Amino acid sequence: MEVFFRPRGVAVIGASREPGKVGYMVLRNLKESFSGPVYPVNPRAREILGLPAYPSVLDVPDPVDLAVVAVPARIVPRVVEEAGRRGVRGVVVLSAGFREVGGEGVLLERRLVEIVRRYGMRLVGPNCIGVYSPSTGVNATFFDPDRQGFPGPGPVAFVSQSGALGAAVLDWAEAREVGVSRFVSLGNKADVDEADMLAFLRRDPETWSIAMYVEGVEDGARFRAALEETTVVKPVVVLKAGRSEAGARAAASHTGSLAGSYRVYQAVFRQTGVIPAGSPDEMYGLALALALQPPMRGRRVGIVTVGGGSGVMASDWLSELGLEVPRLSPETQARLRRVLLPIASPRNPIDVTGGASDQHIVEATRILVESGEVDAVMLIPYFNLAGVTSELPGKIAELLRGLEREGHQVPVVAAVTGGRKAWRTALELEKKAGVPIYVSEAAAAKALWALHRYGKWLIKKGVLEDYLARLRGRREASRGGRGAG
Amino acid sequence: MEVFFRPRGVAVIGASREPGKVGYMVLRNLKESFSGPVYPVNPRAREILGLPAYPSVLDVPDPVDLAVVAVPARIVPRVVEEAGRRGVRGVVVLSAGFREVGGEGVLLERRLVEIVRRYGMRLVGPNCIGVYSPSTGVNATFFDPDRQGFPGPGPVAFVSQSGALGAAVLDWAEAREVGVSRFVSLGNKADVDEADMLAFLRRDPETWSIAMYVEGVEDGARFRAALEETTVVKPVVVLKAGRSEAGARAAASHTGSLAGSYRVYQAVFRQTGVIPAGSPDEMYGLALALALQPPMRGRRVGIVTVGGGSGVMASDWLSELGLEVPRLSPETQARLRRVLLPIASPRNPIDVTGGASDQHIVEATRILVESGEVDAVMLIPYFNLAGVTSELPGKIAELLRGLEREGHQVPVVAAVTGGRKAWRTALELEKKAGVPIYVSEAAAAKALWALHRYGKWLIKKGVLEDYLARLRGRREASRGGRGAG
Repeated sequence: MEVFFRPRGVAVIGASREPGKVGYMVLRNLKESFSGPVYPVNPRAREILGLPAYPSVLDVPDPVDLAVVAVPARIVPRVVEEAGRRGVRGVVVLSAGFREVGGEGVLLERRLVEIVRRYGMRLVGPNCIGVYSPSTGVNATFFDPDRQGFPGPGPVAFVSQSGALGAAVLDWAEAREVGVSRFVSLGNKADVDEADMLAFLRRDPETWSIAMYVEGVEDGARFRAALEETTVVKPVVVLKAGRSEAGARAAASHTGSLAGSYRVYQAVFRQTGVIPAGSPDEMYGLALALALQPPMRGRRVGIVTVGGGSGVMASDWLSELGLEVPRLSPETQARLRRVLLPIASPRNPIDVTGGASDQHIVEATRILVESGEVDAVMLIPYFNLAGVTSELPGKIAELLRGLEREGHQVPVVAAVTGGRKAWRTALELEKKAGVPIYVSEAAAAKALWALHRYGKWLIKKGVLEDYLARLRGRREASRGGRGAG
Repeated sequence: MEVFFRPRGVAVIGASREPGKVGYMVLRNLKESFSGPVYPVNPRAREILGLPAYPSVLDVPDPVDLAVVAVPARIVPRVVEEAGRRGVRGVVVLSAGFREVGGEGVLLERRLVEIVRRYGMRLVGPNCIGVYSPSTGVNATFFDPDRQGFPGPGPVAFVSQSGALGAAVLDWAEAREVGVSRFVSLGNKADVDEADMLAFLRRDPETWSIAMYVEGVEDGARFRAALEETTVVKPVVVLKAGRSEAGARAAASHTGSLAGSYRVYQAVFRQTGVIPAGSPDEMYGLALALALQPPMRGRRVGIVTVGGGSGVMASDWLSELGLEVPRLSPETQARLRRVLLPIASPRNPIDVTGGASDQHIVEATRILVESGEVDAVMLIPYFNLAGVTSELPGKIAELLRGLEREGHQVPVVAAVTGGRKAWRTALELEKKAGVPIYVSEAAAAKALWALHRYGKWLIKKGVLEDYLARLRGRREASRGGRGAG
């Protein structure tokens, strides 16, 4: 599996000179991203994009262990067979026209799998948009970087059965500036499937949380076993589509997947500690929280808000998700009163009020964490107000580093209600302080729900302390680059 | 009430020369925005921001019918009394330190109301962030435009009990480029409350939908009656905060509101045709859909998607919200097959596939609407793919204008899964074609749910045809500027 993310050399079979074609785009993306050798394979070209072209993968010089295939479906078995003979270990087949079209395509896919097995290769696809791994320079997708966002390296791995959805989430991740570790579009899953990816990702040191979009899996027992082994080590967030009858019908016509009863999936998720997500934005948001922040030890949440209304809404959402917004002890309230404005409310939610400065938010957060009376903190900073400045992210980063050094591992997330300007500053909170940000109190509450649910799972499995220790180790290792994990 | 949004002259009582102060910011905002006379009132200044200052509002020349007050709470009754004597008809009190602080503040607020009543004035506030009405040039808020977004004129009115939340939503609206008609921060609601605003907004020709953030209302019967009278004319979306016990406790400490049982509110909303929202982003999104698009006549939704996975998710969400994704008739499927790519799926969801061009999306939408087999269309265009270009918004606008001329009134919304780049193009869809856009299939499905719920309400009240006729009239009037209503 490693060959997909850390190849020594890559052949692009079906490389094209025609801009816009899949075989051109994928070659261009690889040429731009990959530091090792990239070999265009095209019997009718001597050179493409300044690289010498080869008539067949059999003619490609060493080293080559990955082949990306973009030729018409009926030719795919032949070129993949050649790749096997050439000693290639991994094949990514972008071409469509296999099982998803029925009839002849089903047979074609069967032949393809046979060949791959015979040579002991692994296959991603067919009918997929490829593989992306920014830290190792692998961009084996055919999207135009002028139109498609490609995030930098980060802690979230993303595995998608749907190609277009995968691209959309990459686009998203780039806008967030946190980045991904590995991205794979599984397509028809003729060989590599979710279980294989879980087995790989749970050992992948760059991946700290795993997000998956699933329409249907064929071998439920295998999927379940893979989830079980993974969630004790790393959090897994799954967006299962095809929950309703209409959705299942759409899934059948999309990937030919049998969506299965959603109730069965729900039970499996519950029994294996999977965090279920309802939509792609939620999936991404939860995976981000789980990658950047420690899980919650209990269900108590402290809220620090600049706007009272947001505190009310956050309390509603947290309650509705089974979390608590406990009253603080008189001692903690007194400590808060000493540092906040006279009109501020030291209860929980702590309403620092619209007149607050960065320092009020920082101090309230410090007191909350130090009190030991909460298991998580939700910040609601309102960057459009005068007192809250662009220096807050740096100050929060410093505070959290200090608290961590003192042994506190209390997760912090933020809700940023506002537009472009507020969001731009808030992104710094994510980058500098590793505090995941959400567009609403509802989404931030859901992130805490995920951290609570995952914490409960780790406690149940008796591995919470191990997990937290590993997390501390990772933080130590990445000091200064906390946001990117 | 009109005086708050269309004053002839405005006095700023407590105008300040000190940048950053409320009395400075509000004067600056008014000076920049308002075309009529703006009078700073400050006994210790002769001129502020280049405007002649007056020692008292009594000294201000004609015309002056609105006063914005930014002096310490204990002085407020005196200056408001002077405003009354001067013939001012509307007062916006930004100052805090009234009922929300208890004790002395409660008495102060009572005196303030007494004075206002005696002079027959109307009062917004106290303890609020002001009033904003872009089409009439009224920016009577104290936010810094360098940090706070101020949207242009548009069809959505927004009434907020929370100031900071109101500012955040304005910020948001600016990022969307659709704009607002009127914004009011109600604060303590000593005089003007939700019911007054509803009475005004339902007759306001610039307002096509009303969004409200409510923590608690004092006179439930009055609120209910105002809702009843409004929703037969214009859609009302309400975000009720303080639903949970923790939330109600937070509301009590925030605005001193008795949040009341959420179940009671839910019943009122159901009985009066209010669309309930769960979060600020949802509130804004639903109000936008209701302002820009006609309500649904039935529950059938057609989906046009570039990504199969999105079609699956959209189907799930729509089903879960009680809407249908019906199979299309053989005739319609045949029509679709003739214009789409061979690998496209002409069932519903219509999967035009990643290889689709703008024209495929346009044609599929046209066929869906013309078929009469759906009551709404959800577009999922994926702007990060090669075939879907920045020309799609213009083409969709043209299509919808044509369909409207032919008598079709079928709402269209779009889900845009992706990051910055996709979003930028999608915003044009909103601006040019008046198609509201959402960051996920879930949010777009919720928008259709609102359009369906509102349509059902209008049918129940026997006023759907009237409503649709008015909508057509408005469209006619605003041809070319459809996005802004």
